[in-house]
Amino acid sequence: MIIVMKKNASAEQIEAVVEKLQEKGFKAHLSEGVERTIIGAIGERTQAIMDYFTRQPGVEKVVPILQPFKLTSREFQPEPTCIKVGDAVIGDGSLTIIAGPCAVEGREAFLEVAQAVKEAGATMLRGGAFKPRTSPYSFQGLEREGLEILAEARELTGLPVVTEVMDPRMIDIVAQYVDILQVGARNMQNFFLLRELGKVDKPVLLKRGLSSTIEEWIMAAEYIISSGNSQVIMCERGIRTFEKYTRNTLDLSAVPLIKQLTHLPVIVDPSHGTGKWELVEPMAAAAVGAGCDGIMVEVHQNPSEALSDGPQSLTPDNFASMVKKVKMLHQAMQKIS
Amino acid sequence: MIIVMKKNASAEQIEAVVEKLQEKGFKAHLSEGVERTIIGAIGERTQAIMDYFTRQPGVEKVVPILQPFKLTSREFQPEPTCIKVGDAVIGDGSLTIIAGPCAVEGREAFLEVAQAVKEAGATMLRGGAFKPRTSPYSFQGLEREGLEILAEARELTGLPVVTEVMDPRMIDIVAQYVDILQVGARNMQNFFLLRELGKVDKPVLLKRGLSSTIEEWIMAAEYIISSGNSQVIMCERGIRTFEKYTRNTLDLSAVPLIKQLTHLPVIVDPSHGTGKWELVEPMAAAAVGAGCDGIMVEVHQNPSEALSDGPQSLTPDNFASMVKKVKMLHQAMQKIS
Amino acid sequence: MIIVMKKNASAEQIEAVVEKLQEKGFKAHLSEGVERTIIGAIGERTQAIMDYFTRQPGVEKVVPILQPFKLTSREFQPEPTCIKVGDAVIGDGSLTIIAGPCAVEGREAFLEVAQAVKEAGATMLRGGAFKPRTSPYSFQGLEREGLEILAEARELTGLPVVTEVMDPRMIDIVAQYVDILQVGARNMQNFFLLRELGKVDKPVLLKRGLSSTIEEWIMAAEYIISSGNSQVIMCERGIRTFEKYTRNTLDLSAVPLIKQLTHLPVIVDPSHGTGKWELVEPMAAAAVGAGCDGIMVEVHQNPSEALSDGPQSLTPDNFASMVKKVKMLHQAMQKIS
Amino acid sequence: MIIVMKKNASAEQIEAVVEKLQEKGFKAHLSEGVERTIIGAIGERTQAIMDYFTRQPGVEKVVPILQPFKLTSREFQPEPTCIKVGDAVIGDGSLTIIAGPCAVEGREAFLEVAQAVKEAGATMLRGGAFKPRTSPYSFQGLEREGLEILAEARELTGLPVVTEVMDPRMIDIVAQYVDILQVGARNMQNFFLLRELGKVDKPVLLKRGLSSTIEEWIMAAEYIISSGNSQVIMCERGIRTFEKYTRNTLDLSAVPLIKQLTHLPVIVDPSHGTGKWELVEPMAAAAVGAGCDGIMVEVHQNPSEALSDGPQSLTPDNFASMVKKVKMLHQAMQKIS
Repeated sequence: MIIVMKKNASAEQIEAVVEKLQEKGFKAHLSEGVERTIIGAIGERTQAIMDYFTRQPGVEKVVPILQPFKLTSREFQPEPTCIKVGDAVIGDGSLTIIAGPCAVEGREAFLEVAQAVKEAGATMLRGGAFKPRTSPYSFQGLEREGLEILAEARELTGLPVVTEVMDPRMIDIVAQYVDILQVGARNMQNFFLLRELGKVDKPVLLKRGLSSTIEEWIMAAEYIISSGNSQVIMCERGIRTFEKYTRNTLDLSAVPLIKQLTHLPVIVDPSHGTGKWELVEPMAAAAVGAGCDGIMVEVHQNPSEALSDGPQSLTPDNFASMVKKVKMLHQAMQKIS
Repeated sequence: MIIVMKKNASAEQIEAVVEKLQEKGFKAHLSEGVERTIIGAIGERTQAIMDYFTRQPGVEKVVPILQPFKLTSREFQPEPTCIKVGDAVIGDGSLTIIAGPCAVEGREAFLEVAQAVKEAGATMLRGGAFKPRTSPYSFQGLEREGLEILAEARELTGLPVVTEVMDPRMIDIVAQYVDILQVGARNMQNFFLLRELGKVDKPVLLKRGLSSTIEEWIMAAEYIISSGNSQVIMCERGIRTFEKYTRNTLDLSAVPLIKQLTHLPVIVDPSHGTGKWELVEPMAAAAVGAGCDGIMVEVHQNPSEALSDGPQSLTPDNFASMVKKVKMLHQAMQKIS
Repeated sequence: MIIVMKKNASAEQIEAVVEKLQEKGFKAHLSEGVERTIIGAIGERTQAIMDYFTRQPGVEKVVPILQPFKLTSREFQPEPTCIKVGDAVIGDGSLTIIAGPCAVEGREAFLEVAQAVKEAGATMLRGGAFKPRTSPYSFQGLEREGLEILAEARELTGLPVVTEVMDPRMIDIVAQYVDILQVGARNMQNFFLLRELGKVDKPVLLKRGLSSTIEEWIMAAEYIISSGNSQVIMCERGIRTFEKYTRNTLDLSAVPLIKQLTHLPVIVDPSHGTGKWELVEPMAAAAVGAGCDGIMVEVHQNPSEALSDGPQSLTPDNFASMVKKVKMLHQAMQKIS
Repeated sequence: MIIVMKKNASAEQIEAVVEKLQEKGFKAHLSEGVERTIIGAIGERTQAIMDYFTRQPGVEKVVPILQPFKLTSREFQPEPTCIKVGDAVIGDGSLTIIAGPCAVEGREAFLEVAQAVKEAGATMLRGGAFKPRTSPYSFQGLEREGLEILAEARELTGLPVVTEVMDPRMIDIVAQYVDILQVGARNMQNFFLLRELGKVDKPVLLKRGLSSTIEEWIMAAEYIISSGNSQVIMCERGIRTFEKYTRNTLDLSAVPLIKQLTHLPVIVDPSHGTGKWELVEPMAAAAVGAGCDGIMVEVHQNPSEALSDGPQSLTPDNFASMVKKVKMLHQAMQKIS
């Protein structure tokens, strides 16, 4: 349930409610807004309990949350979560554009593509140092060396950097080098990893699992937030269906749904979502039409020689063309609403 | 294979090639463009056959078509197919907006909603007279009476009308009343129905099957076109996946794919594609971003009392708001490309 | 709702109840068992209506049916439906084995394979005269000629014959030639076809649609039965999923589910269900373990030259081996229960 | 590629081939059979390389492996892998029966159900100490205490114990307490976990991911084996589809496919595979018909009060009935083959 405090509720009143919640076996999560404070209370809710808290001094009303997700829900926090990363903000109505190759394959190539995407309008860099690959015999990433290259690219371009972390034991080292920690689709329900990321003071980009429902995806965010880290960015990247022309089926309805059900920002990855570079630009534009907060795409100087995901990577030129289009569409969207 | 004739090829030369194709067991389909004529030849292609036709007078080149679809393919007809319906054209870069209730439920209600959607910007009307329902005990449509109401609404509004035809035996009567014949998702591979629609002189709106691949859907269009009717409009309406928040998963990547693989116009139905009216506007906008030729949505004066598909129907007011948004986005799209 | 009459209820009492049902807007379906008569009543059920009929003379009790399917449900008819076809019975605990090529490709070949499968233990013949094919350029069946060959094979072998009917206009002619009319997966929700088959006095083999839920499949049977034909055999043939090694995913849980939810017999088609002949024998055995009433498999003398479905067809030798195995397993199953 | 040594090849010849493989950048995996030694060589294979090794002393032939999986493939090891756990063997033609509650909920309850399933014929125990749950607010397992209870149950019953390990950091402690380490469906592509399990000297039970293809699943086994642990047991537990009556769709075709493509034993979990206890017995029987090496089912004294997976748990009585049935079917299967 959510306890909405009155506008003029005092700090003592709020504290008293929190203490009483704890006495009754609830976990309390404070959300202090500009106007008023809201207290999320996780525990076994009964009518008697709700009545009891309604009567406490400073309480305006008590609202049950019927959905399985609590701290992520719009009911708990009506205003959208905005996440600051360096100079950029995700979720404030602007359009974040994250670009870079699937994997960091080498120092010079990465610095070059980082410069190229920056010039074309990217606001953040991406690149995998640790790569989850179906085959143990495929390139698994440059690991530590890759992290160092990412940090160098950040210095060079001034852009924040996103990279995937696959193992709880590597969170500390990855967090030293990059700005946003990514949870990959295959790890969306790696609950130990999620809980550890709840203890980190950096934003987490949470990719939707290949066959995860919207609800399971939000519950994964709930794991991170309930462990202490409220900076979660949702990323739709396509789900597995029977269709064979595309690598995955990009489920853009996830964008308005995440916006309606939660207060979290949501970005879209049309590269993994389609698996074909020819579809990346139209689907990026579609994602903007759906109301997303950002786009994440794979860019490679020479897609045909990429060590992974070549067929879905844009050249820097195609990326520049895409950026132009999505920015114009985003402007049109802002005029409308 | 496709036989591309020279720009100045004479009618006799074209005719001669067609005759020779028939002699060798091929079916020939003529496509007379502004600049030149292209002949689609369906049959068993060998290198010898291709060489033979390359040598015929008036022939510029012979191109094999490797994909299973032939007459629908971009290779066969590089320019997009434009379909005229009354004053409207689908596929010429304009944005078609088809609206109306799921089912025609009664005369007055339908005429009222028809007027309302016209005023809000609809360019065509939709409404089911024959309804495919999962249960034999559900409302199955007003049938003949429904067709008459549709025709009256067309008179009243001047807008063309689309309705579904479910049985080959009903094509004649339905074609008397409406402007576009719709094949529903459940009938996408009703091959007898498709073949019969190939003999009709009205456009066919072909909905994608619930679990049809893009290729199977294009092959269904190929059935209609190879039977003689080249006026086919493709309609993406969502596919069946594991996701439960939405009724179907709207696969917008189908839009650029259909545009790239075929010369046919493609529209999107976000009402069936999501099953939730709150998602219709953002997904309609997303569809425009993806480059579709039109939108088809369900509108009902009183969605909570609709005999079918209430939860996914817009009110006339919400429809008006959606039209405003998608038109502005469509204008922005046109400036870009 | 279902009205269970007392054991000694008179014909007059039963008739009176039926009349009163009709007065109140219900459709009544009589099911006269050995012990007592049950009346299925389809219409708008209220508590008042149920109380009213509970008070009628001869009525023992009135039971609501909560599931969307009524006449097919176990609640409506607790004993299993047994369907007689010639000397064979489907659904009485015996194991029906239906075999033959995907399509009837020619007279001699079909008669030969018919003899071969009979000798190996088949109890019915299958073969398509009308073939639903994804491409309009693929072999579409021998049509009328195919039906004549099927009839000749029946004469020769004494085995009943099953074939698919795809169009309501062809039901009469197909019914003249064969013993069981098959509805293919792509037509499972062709409701006009289903309704017409409800007027035929021959059993209908209803294949599950490629992406149909169990409930939709049972509702399709409900269309046939509520139109007057209660001889429906359910056939699980695999559903469409993301898996690529198999053509479809054979959902054997459908077997016990159909048995628990309905009174209809259920058979399994491991040929379409897997798309690979190497999997047909183990999956046929699995189907028997799941408790099915029969197996339908594709057999071809020369699978590599079949005009359709070669990769999933057994040779007559492999078929003979499969029959031996499934019969032994079926015997073991009967000892257990 | 696989290098098949001659029957009488000497140890020196084998060693020389291994050294030369390493010189040329290959990883060599020895498989010493009763008759002869086979060397799996993972690396970049060319015709020249294959010719070179064909000429080495003691080599009979060199065979390329075309599939992406190598060490798991039947081509690499034609005889089935048999895995000894205590007195039991999995994969030798016997039928392993693993039973127990979803989660270890308490000491007494677990010891009681352990005794009950042993008496009814279980050959191994299962029970979760760490539970992967969709919601952070659901019971997450007794953790360390659960492991101690599992160990006590093993002492009491003499049966080997299986439990899930979710995090690389917990492998050591879990391995101290149990006999088989289970990888859950959500972790099937947790590649760091798989690699660490490759270093453990205990068998690994690898569940198929919710939406994993057969090939991805085999590749996950390849991760474990290529990291050094060849004791892998595959477990089919249902895949995610559109069907709603069952929790998952149990894909029994996986059983013969794993047998044909790999040399690994495969067991089936009809509890998770169906989500309904009424379907567990028929689907267990179906799995035996499909040729599996074992069954893993959930048993709880009081399913309606289970902290997780109650609806799919058998009572000890129902479990006893299932064991009787599957054993009789397994005997019948052995007579046939």
